[in-house]
Amino acid sequence: MLFAVRMTVNLPPDMDPDVRASTLAAEKEYARKLQHTGEWLHLWRCAGLYANLSIFDVTGNDRLNEILWELPLFAYMDVTVTPLTRHASAIG
Amino acid sequence: MLFAVRMTVNLPPDMDPDVRASTLAAEKEYARKLQHTGEWLHLWRCAGLYANLSIFDVTGNDRLNEILWELPLFAYMDVTVTPLTRHASAIG
Amino acid sequence: MLFAVRMTVNLPPDMDPDVRASTLAAEKEYARKLQHTGEWLHLWRCAGLYANLSIFDVTGNDRLNEILWELPLFAYMDVTVTPLTRHASAIG
Amino acid sequence: MLFAVRMTVNLPPDMDPDVRASTLAAEKEYARKLQHTGEWLHLWRCAGLYANLSIFDVTGNDRLNEILWELPLFAYMDVTVTPLTRHASAIG
Amino acid sequence: MLFAVRMTVNLPPDMDPDVRASTLAAEKEYARKLQHTGEWLHLWRCAGLYANLSIFDVTGNDRLNEILWELPLFAYMDVTVTPLTRHASAIG
Amino acid sequence: MLFAVRMTVNLPPDMDPDVRASTLAAEKEYARKLQHTGEWLHLWRCAGLYANLSIFDVTGNDRLNEILWELPLFAYMDVTVTPLTRHASAIG
Amino acid sequence: MLFAVRMTVNLPPDMDPDVRASTLAAEKEYARKLQHTGEWLHLWRCAGLYANLSIFDVTGNDRLNEILWELPLFAYMDVTVTPLTRHASAIG
Amino acid sequence: MLFAVRMTVNLPPDMDPDVRASTLAAEKEYARKLQHTGEWLHLWRCAGLYANLSIFDVTGNDRLNEILWELPLFAYMDVTVTPLTRHASAIG
Amino acid sequence: MLFAVRMTVNLPPDMDPDVRASTLAAEKEYARKLQHTGEWLHLWRCAGLYANLSIFDVTGNDRLNEILWELPLFAYMDVTVTPLTRHASAIG
Amino acid sequence: MLFAVRMTVNLPPDMDPDVRASTLAAEKEYARKLQHTGEWLHLWRCAGLYANLSIFDVTGNDRLNEILWELPLFAYMDVTVTPLTRHASAIG
Repeated sequence: MLFAVRMTVNLPPDMDPDVRASTLAAEKEYARKLQHTGEWLHLWRCAGLYANLSIFDVTGNDRLNEILWELPLFAYMDVTVTPLTRHASAIG
Repeated sequence: MLFAVRMTVNLPPDMDPDVRASTLAAEKEYARKLQHTGEWLHLWRCAGLYANLSIFDVTGNDRLNEILWELPLFAYMDVTVTPLTRHASAIG
Repeated sequence: MLFAVRMTVNLPPDMDPDVRASTLAAEKEYARKLQHTGEWLHLWRCAGLYANLSIFDVTGNDRLNEILWELPLFAYMDVTVTPLTRHASAIG
Repeated sequence: MLFAVRMTVNLPPDMDPDVRASTLAAEKEYARKLQHTGEWLHLWRCAGLYANLSIFDVTGNDRLNEILWELPLFAYMDVTVTPLTRHASAIG
Repeated sequence: MLFAVRMTVNLPPDMDPDVRASTLAAEKEYARKLQHTGEWLHLWRCAGLYANLSIFDVTGNDRLNEILWELPLFAYMDVTVTPLTRHASAIG
Repeated sequence: MLFAVRMTVNLPPDMDPDVRASTLAAEKEYARKLQHTGEWLHLWRCAGLYANLSIFDVTGNDRLNEILWELPLFAYMDVTVTPLTRHASAIG
Repeated sequence: MLFAVRMTVNLPPDMDPDVRASTLAAEKEYARKLQHTGEWLHLWRCAGLYANLSIFDVTGNDRLNEILWELPLFAYMDVTVTPLTRHASAIG
Repeated sequence: MLFAVRMTVNLPPDMDPDVRASTLAAEKEYARKLQHTGEWLHLWRCAGLYANLSIFDVTGNDRLNEILWELPLFAYMDVTVTPLTRHASAIG
Repeated sequence: MLFAVRMTVNLPPDMDPDVRASTLAAEKEYARKLQHTGEWLHLWRCAGLYANLSIFDVTGNDRLNEILWELPLFAYMDVTVTPLTRHASAIG
Repeated sequence: MLFAVRMTVNLPPDMDPDVRASTLAAEKEYARKLQHTGEWLHLWRCAGLYANLSIFDVTGNDRLNEILWELPLFAYMDVTVTPLTRHASAIG
């Protein structure tokens, strides 16, 4: 089941540099792990913004919720969730 | 070059049924043709809404503009365009 | 899988009275049928507004999309969809 | 009398961990207690967001106000309140 | 139980003059009748706007919903509803 | 001359408890005094929110401005002001 | 007593040309008359928009309401009203 | 003096084709004429939207207003105006 | 050339009292000086808000920008700028 | 390929003066360097606001993203990006 998720990150400019670095590293590792399992299907940067557009392929709302809450940057994000489905004009 | 485009369709309830049917058929054919060429990379329905989320893979802004203006439903749509780029945490 | 859906209805004041009456009757029958099957779990009127808040219990995004697109009033509605999941503080 | 309440929680990232933990524990206990009395009828997580959608069944506006003001997380919440009533198409 | 209701009226400029006149007359009579019963506690014009701010004193959400849906101008209105309660600093 | 004023209060969660208590006490005394003089005609809590809806009966804009600027919580409030006038359908 | 009023005009493109011309002429005459009496203190065009910013000097909310409701273009306008008062840093 | 102007065009889908064609031709001629005189300094299409971003170089607000009001499509446009000035980091 | 400027002031509640006092004094002196030169044509308080509506009469965008950037409270303000021009119905 | 970018800067009033000065100097140097290479085609101040409107001429979304992320003020900015293309009525 697919969901589009847009995440906008707001890091405080005075964040501790070490906390910042370790949080960003954890986020990267987390994102890569979920891409390898296939649940984080697409991850694109919105050009010029500290934001991404992601497509998740998960078993349902419960799993989507788990994944997003465990994001290392979750506390710093504004998130919007859009459930997707097959479009009648889509091919393949 | 990738762009996320969200299209929301507003068809007037009193639209002529024949015009409506032929416009929707043309839209479907147009969407399928561009998917086959690879320019319309993804086309998803936003569940429960008369709206879609699409990803286009085009040579640039000029080509994106051409494609969207030639949509048979263009005159009935609200469109938002988000340029995308590679995310530093993306794999592959 | 649960979804909260808010539907706001905008009927044109000059709508043909017969079309209006038959559409509203079809909407009522459709809503009741889906409540009996258990998919339309809750249906509440937002007090004083031509709007409702509904909870759907469906197999996923695809089924939610089918149900909403087949609403007899779909062409006259503004719809928002919020995927729900179990809350850690919920009982039962 | 039913009310839909959407609560969005904004905890400061630099909140004292002990205060945070005790506030969250108090919130959970409070939510469970009111669910057992029947006043907090439904409590759902909005998937992927630090937000919930709740349905309260209370004697009126006064009681709803009391309940929400006593939420341990009240000072950190954005709240919207929608009074509900029976829908003409609802069954049962 | 008190509710603040703001009603904004949008009459189409090309509305039939007779329908317009009779609807406005019915609205006036309806508003006066409910003021006499005490349910429509206050009715103020928002200065310079085709809008009013009203306070209703009713038994609950159900009755508020009945009253607003029966407004002769209901189909032409944007309505917002705010449930009120006693303020801790209010006197009397 | 009547004005509707909606005040939303945003107290910082880390406000000094003594300052907080004394400011709230001053606000309460101030609100009561102005209700006794008749200038603060109505004061209602918006149920479940840290916000109130108030009606002021003052000599004009100058006096309304004085009253609001002297609110002990003024620095913590978002305020909207709506000038009111007699409605043609009001009785009495 | 001063009020700032912003009026945005939305004339339907298919408005009858004679009605349009006579309404605009009436609006102009009305605006000039009230400027001569001193109640319509300032009238400025917002550059490039079908909108104006006006300052009214009237006895109060009641008179402001009368003036705005009698605008020949009132049915085609979006209006916002801001009550003004003397600024502590103003001279003269 | 420079101004950024964003124009969004909303043509009714049922516009008379001849009126539409002649209005669009007049708009094109008007835009080209003002570009030749140097007052319409830049004219860009917002990719995928029926909207443009323009930069005008005019003697002041009065002339900007004249130019925009005489646009053949003015009645069908939403317009925003942003006055510009030299940036301290600009070269040349 | 006239511009309407709305300034909303957001002073942090914990601002140093001396800095606050000296900044406000500088703002007042600055506003009075520009009123005496005629460039700050009107300065009104928005009743009940920490906001003002001002009319500037300046040589152009460059001078307006200079004036606003030198406001002692500039760093604490939200500002909107509306270029004005003569209205066809204005007298005098 | 052209993009319009609007950047609004939000510097905290209590920012360390040295950090502030060095960041602003770096921003200026960075902006000048990119203007000399031709990628930052236009840079205008929005009059009276801490905001600019910029036009970038870059090879695509990837390069635009690089440029904006490397802005010394990036962490303090709200950014909007609008891809542009040739307008059918543009000359030259």
